[in-house]
Amino acid sequence: MTTVRQQCFRAYSAFETLKIMKTSVKNRIIRKIGEEILENSNDILKANSLDVHTARGKGVSAPLVDRLELNEKRIHAMVESCEKVAALEDPVGKIQYTSILENGLKISKTRIPIGTIGMIYESRPNVTVDAAILCLKSGNSVVLRGGSDAFNSNVALCECIKKALEGSEAPSSCVEYLAQKDRESVGMLMNMREYISLLIPRGGGELIKFVKENSTVPVLETGVGNCHIFVDYNADFDKSIDVIINAKTQRPGTCNSVETVLIHGEIASEFLPLLVKALKKHNVEIYGCEKCNSIADVLKATEEDWFREYLGLAIAIKIVDDVELAIEHINKYSSHHSESILTNDIENSKKFTELVDSAAVYVNASTRFTDGEQFGFGAEIGISTQRIIARGPVGLNELTTYKYVIEGDYSIRG
Amino acid sequence: MTTVRQQCFRAYSAFETLKIMKTSVKNRIIRKIGEEILENSNDILKANSLDVHTARGKGVSAPLVDRLELNEKRIHAMVESCEKVAALEDPVGKIQYTSILENGLKISKTRIPIGTIGMIYESRPNVTVDAAILCLKSGNSVVLRGGSDAFNSNVALCECIKKALEGSEAPSSCVEYLAQKDRESVGMLMNMREYISLLIPRGGGELIKFVKENSTVPVLETGVGNCHIFVDYNADFDKSIDVIINAKTQRPGTCNSVETVLIHGEIASEFLPLLVKALKKHNVEIYGCEKCNSIADVLKATEEDWFREYLGLAIAIKIVDDVELAIEHINKYSSHHSESILTNDIENSKKFTELVDSAAVYVNASTRFTDGEQFGFGAEIGISTQRIIARGPVGLNELTTYKYVIEGDYSIRG
Repeated sequence: MTTVRQQCFRAYSAFETLKIMKTSVKNRIIRKIGEEILENSNDILKANSLDVHTARGKGVSAPLVDRLELNEKRIHAMVESCEKVAALEDPVGKIQYTSILENGLKISKTRIPIGTIGMIYESRPNVTVDAAILCLKSGNSVVLRGGSDAFNSNVALCECIKKALEGSEAPSSCVEYLAQKDRESVGMLMNMREYISLLIPRGGGELIKFVKENSTVPVLETGVGNCHIFVDYNADFDKSIDVIINAKTQRPGTCNSVETVLIHGEIASEFLPLLVKALKKHNVEIYGCEKCNSIADVLKATEEDWFREYLGLAIAIKIVDDVELAIEHINKYSSHHSESILTNDIENSKKFTELVDSAAVYVNASTRFTDGEQFGFGAEIGISTQRIIARGPVGLNELTTYKYVIEGDYSIRG
Repeated sequence: MTTVRQQCFRAYSAFETLKIMKTSVKNRIIRKIGEEILENSNDILKANSLDVHTARGKGVSAPLVDRLELNEKRIHAMVESCEKVAALEDPVGKIQYTSILENGLKISKTRIPIGTIGMIYESRPNVTVDAAILCLKSGNSVVLRGGSDAFNSNVALCECIKKALEGSEAPSSCVEYLAQKDRESVGMLMNMREYISLLIPRGGGELIKFVKENSTVPVLETGVGNCHIFVDYNADFDKSIDVIINAKTQRPGTCNSVETVLIHGEIASEFLPLLVKALKKHNVEIYGCEKCNSIADVLKATEEDWFREYLGLAIAIKIVDDVELAIEHINKYSSHHSESILTNDIENSKKFTELVDSAAVYVNASTRFTDGEQFGFGAEIGISTQRIIARGPVGLNELTTYKYVIEGDYSIRG
């Protein structure tokens, strides 16, 4: 049986070919993956219904089953993703800058792929395809380990990926899928420093925490979004309510949805009742601070609520004295994903964008915009919430690193 | 007594002020550090001679004592470093790009400091000053842990840094020095994930390996340089010898010096004797492969020699059949620092720069150019040999990260 180490080594070896593969060849493979998925959609759907059936039998929650379940529409969305990623610009080989040094040397900072990437994710079959095509396009080989509830779906999808690779100039090991169901294989992947350059966990907070704490391979944390909106003393009430409703209810299960609203004390008694009314109309459960509870009919928030990513129709609200205290609260409780200030005070918006320590800081906008597509990256493999390697949406460009190429004329250092 | 955790927390807290400090204020502090060092040079030299005396008594090797020892000239070099770093452009707040998205949102990718940096380094007192001023200038607070042989020198220098900070608008905890001499304090620093964003070990291979294997804080590996030069079939002989002599002998203790020369088989019988003669004239010990030994009078290289960073007047030489095998050797044995091809064949130079996996890849130049100053960065805190976070010289820019600032007009996602 193939071991995790062998698969990692194969992907690592395939990188040597992939890292210099022509854009046109990579695009052909990616499009072919789409075609294979379309052609084999019946088999994929069959495999998926097996997974869904087992998951339901095990009592997996409805939202998780929804993430797991495929249908014609979702198959088509995967095929479209392949088309879209094939059409994106290839970052590899792009020269970030060139300069001629005083000594006559010509130096070019050039984008190159990172190496072999390890992806650990939950039971969402579309992540299998997304991760494979984004890594291929950016010249990185990849070792995938999806959630065991999606096992059959992932194997069926990986068959399509393998077929596309086998008919191409690329080694089929550019994408390796760990078909071991045990947790041990995840542990091995997390410590395969010889072969894996970067590990990207994608999923809930528990998964990411587990990978971060147990991995010796560098980790790119993604996804946990405890996002905030601060409503300043002179914000427009109606528009602010629209923004909050959008940020909470447009797709409450996403990481860029708002989880806590902070309200300036000066406007709380007037603004809070309006906001509460609008939220309740959208069936949002509200956990408020003590002051909130004295103004409106809401549930009592505990210290834990300030840390929570509800990922559903629930929200926490706190009244704060000023923008400084709003920033302090955010920097203390946030997951450093996305935060927004709603204000007509330029000084306060400047303070907020400068002092808030998150990947995306908004002025007068919904936090829902933090997304590779919205940012113009075309696609994303996840949203980074850490300070180094990458921040915010991780697109093709963020899946590359750089090297310096220096040309001289038998130049020596004086 | 102050604990490591307390000091890390203090530096972490100081970052809140430092991260938005005006460039002019930071420059004033950095210049003041230089003034304090100059004013207190007698005390620093006294503390240093105590360290040197103890090190000699303990039988520390001559090159290490040389790195430890300060004198008037080296004091002045530190003062000049302060002037120079104060004069460099501040990367913080620089906007990498701004774009208006289709939905009207204005997005700016902005450079910001990384956070609190941990520096673990060997007994070179100038690193204390370099690290402090580069971190300050780039808006990062820093926790320093220097080698115990330089203990008194570092404490004297940190006194100067503290004095400069105390007379300024910045918290004095922007720079914390761990004055604990035990290894336990290093272990604590390496696991202070709550407060330290990035750890930079600087020194020999053993230190870096130790930090990398025992740290849960992300590590930026620096310094180990097993650098290569490949002499291609049609390289100019005389000029190639000049480049190799420069790369090996100009400053043999540095990480960008060449350690292994690869020679194309076609020219070996002619070129090798000339090279050996030139190297011997410069007292360089030569370890050659079997073929080398059949052509010239050299020592026998073992497998271990291909991995070695001699850091002195010694070199390994291997004869290879072609550029592909040169690249294969380099990617197998190199520390991914700097490699060079000497050739007049454009195809081969292209192959070499594309396929060699190192931070700096040269065509017709000495590897000695890999250096922040030479690259036009003004100064550097080290040279990264890893693929992610940063590659090659780590200057002010590489000590920053980014965030997105997005401005809308109460914009909601449709």
